[in-house]
Amino acid sequence: MITAPTGIATPTAGPAPDPTATPLGFGVGARLTASVMTEDYARVLVGILSRLDLTGLVRETGDVSTYLGGHESHLQRVLIDLAEELARTEHHATLSLVLSRGCPGEVVCELPEGAGPRGTAVPEPRRTGRYAAAEWSLYPLADQVTADGTAPDHMRDIYAAIDHARELGTFRGSEHFVTRLEGDIGDVISTAVAGWLLVGRSVQHVTSHLTVSLNSPSHEVRELEGEAR
Amino acid sequence: MITAPTGIATPTAGPAPDPTATPLGFGVGARLTASVMTEDYARVLVGILSRLDLTGLVRETGDVSTYLGGHESHLQRVLIDLAEELARTEHHATLSLVLSRGCPGEVVCELPEGAGPRGTAVPEPRRTGRYAAAEWSLYPLADQVTADGTAPDHMRDIYAAIDHARELGTFRGSEHFVTRLEGDIGDVISTAVAGWLLVGRSVQHVTSHLTVSLNSPSHEVRELEGEAR
Repeated sequence: MITAPTGIATPTAGPAPDPTATPLGFGVGARLTASVMTEDYARVLVGILSRLDLTGLVRETGDVSTYLGGHESHLQRVLIDLAEELARTEHHATLSLVLSRGCPGEVVCELPEGAGPRGTAVPEPRRTGRYAAAEWSLYPLADQVTADGTAPDHMRDIYAAIDHARELGTFRGSEHFVTRLEGDIGDVISTAVAGWLLVGRSVQHVTSHLTVSLNSPSHEVRELEGEAR
Repeated sequence: MITAPTGIATPTAGPAPDPTATPLGFGVGARLTASVMTEDYARVLVGILSRLDLTGLVRETGDVSTYLGGHESHLQRVLIDLAEELARTEHHATLSLVLSRGCPGEVVCELPEGAGPRGTAVPEPRRTGRYAAAEWSLYPLADQVTADGTAPDHMRDIYAAIDHARELGTFRGSEHFVTRLEGDIGDVISTAVAGWLLVGRSVQHVTSHLTVSLNSPSHEVRELEGEAR
């Protein structure tokens, strides 16, 4: 906010920017950790990462994970591209993802509660022909009470996300602490992104964690070829 | 609850069991996904898992992760043992952990809100002499309002957890969506378990996610040998 001394006009000062207007202003991003079960993992990963189309995203590479920030549709596109490339190596691989929106900043959110939510269309899934099994957690983290004095109905939001997973055909059931997803890796990642956005329609700060297993020897009997599409 | 027809005594029926009395009744457990960057990963992991002392814990093995349920002190012991064994392979490895307490069941918690919290002493850390870098998320998930009408103070709980990380010497700073931890892998895992329990003193349902990197080529200049102990 700009405070002008009395009587002095500030013609260039517009209204305070809307924190939901831009993905980075709203803290929309992902962290990803890809693990490839080969001694040659460094060359494999550098090759895959160098070929990714990062249009619309910022990237910061770390030794534990890589951060990507930007619009949810760009994030989904790149995460599916990455998972497909990992699967095409034919090595067993795991991919750990953190998705977050509504809390830019670090320990303390730089956005006050009530700055959101930010509605975003659910991106269309893209199929890859590659199978994945995954475990998914989805966390509505806002605690704010709405204007009419009611708390957010998190179970309603979670059920909407699970109904969407059923529609995509990836829902396989609930286990301790996680929801199991299976299917085309494109559909699996789209399920997590969609759930995150569906809960985000009513909750400002939403995170989601997804652990994906690709090319596991346990999966041989469950490849996509054998499934009804 | 047992409802007796009027006038019929039920001498064998005691009070309803306290859901915080047992770890499994309170849904205390972890899921872990270990990834070893070698074609020989299956033999390596089977060997490590077969040597773990699972005293006091239940285990369910899956293709994406392994579930362990039981007392927090047993969980910490086994997670440190596992991480130390992974590090001793000298292969680059990642370990993804989910910790959860206060919400047994699956999509819907089988415990009602207000059944907790459950106070548990923070277990002593155990050092291993092996270095790890990690990224940590900690989620207080209870939304219940306390008897005096106030909401839980989650930032106070998170700050207590971060202060504890500073005392253990593992806190390295905050990044987008996660807190960075470094140090002896025993201290890193103890930090995550302690934060989970410290928040759990006032919040029933608390989850925590930790992604650990071991034997990364990026870590050569930061080994424990070069640190002041």
